[in-house]
Formats: sequence, C-alpha cells, structure tokens
Amino acid sequence: MFWTFVDASQISEGRVRIEGKEGHHLARVLRVRPGERGVAVSNGREYEIEVVEVGGNRVLARVHSDRPVQGEPHLGITLLQAVLPNPDFDAAIEGGTAVGIGRFIAVQSQRSVARPASQRLARWQAIAVSAAEQSHRGQVPEVMGPVSLPAALEVASGARLLVLEPSAPVPLVRAIDGSDRYTIAVGPEGGWTDDELSLMRERGGVMVNLGARILRARLAPVVAAAILVQQR
Amino acid sequence: MFWTFVDASQISEGRVRIEGKEGHHLARVLRVRPGERGVAVSNGREYEIEVVEVGGNRVLARVHSDRPVQGEPHLGITLLQAVLPNPDFDAAIEGGTAVGIGRFIAVQSQRSVARPASQRLARWQAIAVSAAEQSHRGQVPEVMGPVSLPAALEVASGARLLVLEPSAPVPLVRAIDGSDRYTIAVGPEGGWTDDELSLMRERGGVMVNLGARILRARLAPVVAAAILVQQR
Repeated sequence: MFWTFVDASQISEGRVRIEGKEGHHLARVLRVRPGERGVAVSNGREYEIEVVEVGGNRVLARVHSDRPVQGEPHLGITLLQAVLPNPDFDAAIEGGTAVGIGRFIAVQSQRSVARPASQRLARWQAIAVSAAEQSHRGQVPEVMGPVSLPAALEVASGARLLVLEPSAPVPLVRAIDGSDRYTIAVGPEGGWTDDELSLMRERGGVMVNLGARILRARLAPVVAAAILVQQR
Repeated sequence: MFWTFVDASQISEGRVRIEGKEGHHLARVLRVRPGERGVAVSNGREYEIEVVEVGGNRVLARVHSDRPVQGEPHLGITLLQAVLPNPDFDAAIEGGTAVGIGRFIAVQSQRSVARPASQRLARWQAIAVSAAEQSHRGQVPEVMGPVSLPAALEVASGARLLVLEPSAPVPLVRAIDGSDRYTIAVGPEGGWTDDELSLMRERGGVMVNLGARILRARLAPVVAAAILVQQR
C-alpha cells in the first residue's frame, strides 16, 4: 500500500491525478500498477484510492472513500534544531517526522560546526516528504532555515519552549503543562552557549533533561518529541 | 572526558589498570594522555580517574573519587527484538542502549528475513559496549541470541510484557502500571504472526501501540523504551 501527498486541485469527481515528482515516484520507483490500493492525503483528509491507469510519470486513481487524517498528533511540536553534521541532521528530520514533529527550524547556533549550503534545505524538505509518507502522517512537516537563534525564536513564539540541556534539574515529562503547542530546542553536539541559553530563558524557555544518560544529538530530538506526543 | 567499563579486579589501592581491548581503545584510538580525566565504571560505582601513565595498550590511572552509578534508569527494561536486517538491528542496540535498555534478546521470528551468523552476537555486544560508553551508562546491557520466541519469553518471564503492535487499541503509556521490570517485544518489519501474538498473549503480553504513525523497526524499540524510562 502506498502513501502520497497531493494538492486539492489534483482531486476532482472521484478521481486523483498524480503527476510531477510524486507521479514519478509512484510510477517509476514504486512501480504501482492498476488495481493497487493506496492513500492520497490532501488538506487534512485521507483518500483511499485505487490505481486506474499508469502512464509515464502520471498515475490516475479512483477515490473509494475519504476520512479526516489519522496520523497527526494532538499536539503541535516545533523542533528548533541547531545545525548538525549532515547525516545527523538528516536523521533528526527523518525520525522526528515519524514521531510527529510538525515543523523543523534549523538554527545556525554558535557551536554548530557545519554550515549547510543553501541547497541543503531542499534536501531536508525531501527527507520530510519521504518520512511523512513512510510513517503515514496526515501532513508533511514544514522545514525552514538555517536561521539565527533570535529569528527562530521569533517564528516559534507562542508555544511553550522546552530547551534540552543535560545539566537541567527538571526532566522533560515534568515540564509538560497541558499546552497544545510546544517548541523543543536542541543544541549541537557541543551544546548551547551561555548566551544562547540566556536568550532562551528570557523568551520563557524552560530547561529540561531527558534523564541521566547522554543521547546523541540525532536521537535526542526524536526521543523528546516522542515523549511529548504520548502525553495527555 | 572518556568513559570506560572495568572489572573490579582492575582497581586496587586507588589505582585502575586498563588493559586488553579497553586499554587499546583508550591508548590507541582515543589517545588519552597523562593528566586526562575520565570515568571508570565497575560493579555499580563510577570512579573519577586521572590518567597517570600510558604504555602500549595499557593505561594506568589514579582514582580521585567514586560514587554510585548515575546513568541507570529506575526500571529494568528488556528488549525482545525480532531479528532485523543488520543496520537496523545495530541501530536498535545503539539507540536502545542510550535510552536505558538493560538487556537485548534477539529473536528469530517467523517473519525475520535476516538470519544472523553466530559471530553477529559478538558485534552486537561490541555495539552495546560502545553505546554504553558514549551515553555514560552505569552498566553495559546484556545481549543474547538469536533464540526462538518461546525461549526468549522464558528468559524474560517475571517482567510486564508489552507487545508493540500498531493495530492495538491501547497506547503504550496507558499500559504502564508501576511495575519495575518491563519487557518490550518488537516484531520484524512485517510484524509478528498471529501464532506469535497468541503465544505472547498466553504469557500475559499486553498489545500496545505507539500512536497513529508508523515507526520504522529500528526506531520503534528506542522510542518505546524512552517513553517507559521517563514514566514515574
């Protein structure tokens, strides 16, 4: 069963036309065939579809039924992630999308060693699409940046800000207060600087830990988001 | 700062002798030098040490202080993990060790495609050692198997058994009941068979989900253990 995201304009009169990059992926990479079933997600609804015709990079499918998306968490989670070396940042987007993060903001932090080229953003977005399909999300997370920390905090304002800091005395679970929007800020391997921590405190940030063990930077945001999502 | 595990016999009169594989790792790979500080863990205690002498594959260090280990979770968690393709199983051990799993039992499940060669166990154990050092655990998790599912359940008996099953109606967090020992059973990419699920139900297994999203097999056990560890 395949899973794909389409624009509302691609659905009409009980049919879905899938073209462009997604059409190519279905027709050429996954090699779907007439009769095969899948789900097309658009605008908060999941459409159960059946492939009718495949030609070139274009797939035509019939809609059997539709329902509201099932794969979205009840919380809005933004990950404000300091830039990491490529494989680690990629892994944070892949795993973070699977556990339900809704938005990623890459931050060029003071101790970020890597300086992603501008075309990196397109790759991050592609990873988010692919992970959203694999994990059956109801929407593709937004990916932005890299931006400065003040700019990222501005974008993320209004949500409860939890700053992962291994030396913080408060465990993440105890900082959950019933908010419906959270921002998790995760530093680079070398951690946030004191200036960065002060700035986040000024913006209402609560420093939290994930337990006594040291988690690699690629795993920490995924685990933190997974714990948040499971809370009620 | 380095982190290493030693036998009690290596510590005497305020000195630690680190030889063999660990000595090689410190002396040749990490290239520690006299004056460098680290932690040697032995038998439930963390020893703050300072390197005094490095020669060949041998490191001699002075003990400054010691305290009970800080990096162990308050829960005993066993992961009963169906065999996965190598990189995925390796990733489950690495991430699982970092979040606090105490024991891994590899299970040759009915839908496990991979059939690890017997020398694979040594590699899994090496990954557990390295991940325990990186994450500052207070002990190296045990790794066993691959064994049959009945044999694994026998070894893990006495703990509360939670079986990850995406179609289960109960979320993992709601199956937490104050036990101090849990076993998490995670199937292969294709899932457990009905026979395997029945067997686990007979042994008291509770089927649980991790939310509406599909997690890759390498990530699911890590997320499940991380959620358990954070509960009180």
